[in-house]
Amino acid sequence: MDRLTFRKASEQDLDTVIRMLADDVLGQQRERYETPLPDCYREAFQAIHTDPNNELVVACVRGEVVGVIQLTFTPYLTYQGGWRATIEGVRTSSTTRGQGIGTKLIEWGIQRAKDRGCHLVQLTTDKKREDALRFYEQLGFTASHEGMKLKL
Amino acid sequence: MDRLTFRKASEQDLDTVIRMLADDVLGQQRERYETPLPDCYREAFQAIHTDPNNELVVACVRGEVVGVIQLTFTPYLTYQGGWRATIEGVRTSSTTRGQGIGTKLIEWGIQRAKDRGCHLVQLTTDKKREDALRFYEQLGFTASHEGMKLKL
Repeated sequence: MDRLTFRKASEQDLDTVIRMLADDVLGQQRERYETPLPDCYREAFQAIHTDPNNELVVACVRGEVVGVIQLTFTPYLTYQGGWRATIEGVRTSSTTRGQGIGTKLIEWGIQRAKDRGCHLVQLTTDKKREDALRFYEQLGFTASHEGMKLKL
Repeated sequence: MDRLTFRKASEQDLDTVIRMLADDVLGQQRERYETPLPDCYREAFQAIHTDPNNELVVACVRGEVVGVIQLTFTPYLTYQGGWRATIEGVRTSSTTRGQGIGTKLIEWGIQRAKDRGCHLVQLTTDKKREDALRFYEQLGFTASHEGMKLKL
């Protein structure tokens, strides 16, 4: 595979990123990939882009976006005032599956969390995504917690 | 019980808050409640206090701090650019246990998340905290996800 490069997402990537989020068994039920893209996505992008504790990062092969990851850095009092990194919204392009891009995205996120001085990387994965649990365990994560959600 | 009031924590509350975090079966292994308080806690407090997407809130009875909760508000592209609230670091004073203060703290957090326009409230709870799972389920949360952690 050609070399994978990582960079912060720009607004020009948004169409490709939303297409990836919608091209997913759970995502297709909850996203709206339309032309033009609904304003809600541009507003969320701006909120992420202007927040120093949030980073939306794309992985590219030969200039083409093939993966996306969002990192949130949060200061907590617990663990002696430790910062945590939360990973969310990881997706890879369906045309490049099976090439280890997902693994490289998470490994990149773990390194970025170290660079930001975090003591922990965390994420939640839907219990319906049966493969994801093993995928994250192979990357060193432990399913030590229940991930609890309440829809408002 | 006297009326419970909620307000943003100030630096003057920090000693009481760290004492509560350390007075806990898991917290006592990982916190350092000392006089004077280690600088790491003041630095974390300032990072939380100055971040518009983080709120450290204390619950008080007759002016005395009896509970604490941290809320983090995060913009995501997923769910059509929806904001989520994450609850962390919930503790109540050991001298006022069994008075429903924990329930009121979480209910307050849920209302605050609604006020901030969030579509979801989420938290993770250590699988070793056996009572916590039932506590959160009674408050409407669903253990739909695995909460995965990787220590760095």
